[in-house]
Amino acid sequence: MLKLFLIRHGIAADRTGYIHDAERPLTTNGKIRTHQVATRLRDLEIQFDLILTSPLLRARQTADILVDAGCVAKTMAGEPYSYFLQRFSALAPGGAIEHWFEWLERWQPDLPQASLALVGHQPDLGHWAEMLLWNAIGDRLILKKAGIIGIEIANPAQPLQQSRLFLLTSPKWLL
Amino acid sequence: MLKLFLIRHGIAADRTGYIHDAERPLTTNGKIRTHQVATRLRDLEIQFDLILTSPLLRARQTADILVDAGCVAKTMAGEPYSYFLQRFSALAPGGAIEHWFEWLERWQPDLPQASLALVGHQPDLGHWAEMLLWNAIGDRLILKKAGIIGIEIANPAQPLQQSRLFLLTSPKWLL
Repeated sequence: MLKLFLIRHGIAADRTGYIHDAERPLTTNGKIRTHQVATRLRDLEIQFDLILTSPLLRARQTADILVDAGCVAKTMAGEPYSYFLQRFSALAPGGAIEHWFEWLERWQPDLPQASLALVGHQPDLGHWAEMLLWNAIGDRLILKKAGIIGIEIANPAQPLQQSRLFLLTSPKWLL
Repeated sequence: MLKLFLIRHGIAADRTGYIHDAERPLTTNGKIRTHQVATRLRDLEIQFDLILTSPLLRARQTADILVDAGCVAKTMAGEPYSYFLQRFSALAPGGAIEHWFEWLERWQPDLPQASLALVGHQPDLGHWAEMLLWNAIGDRLILKKAGIIGIEIANPAQPLQQSRLFLLTSPKWLL
């Protein structure tokens, strides 16, 4: 069984002053709020075996905050695993979930009881969740900045058939 | 816009010793945990204009705990509204959401910006939520005891067409 956490990046600077959307950073408040969420996850003993992040700056900063807060699984020696954070291009805005399915097919055999975080953007993360749950996209999930969707995937080889939602929350309810 | 909270009853006594399922009460731990959830909701300033509850004892006790914790809206004089808690037979196990639609049609005109709680059972509450969100039942929502599903219904006259999920949580994430 795979526990999948879809995490939206924190509050980012608006487009004024940034030529490239990909370079917009988290605001100071966005960093603080994201760090509060990450600390809360760590206190709830959420430890990701791996974090995949969108290559955009605001998502990478969010992923870094999760790592810094201690939300990655540790080895027996108390160190994080070597590959606990990776950029994943299909998590950029407009990316197709099929690319993640292909990745998942290769990743899953090693970790049958894994916990995986995907850090990305709306509306994509909500659409990916709807695909996993209902194999249809209806824009029915509200995912705020630094909010989290949690999905249990009973059989990672068939993620579309047996996935169930166990969490959807904004920071408000979590903190 | 209607904010709808579907709340599952707390942990109840098992069937041993109870002839009628409807008479099983919350356990001591179930009461404590439910009260913690209710207090948290009050601290988050969640105030229901009305609570509809399943007529089964474990649901009624859960609804009473929500009232006692202060989760019902107050009048200008600081008192709860007269009719803030009602039994609703269609919330008993196996009840059809259509009965609630009929009720909603009559209730909604007075309160265009209302907050409504339904206290009931699984798998029914999950099915009702799936009907509101996707107009289909797939058993895709995990709702633990004393857990909460939050749905925004943009147009209560057409609840099946424009509803969105803003919260799904077990007590673990909330407390």
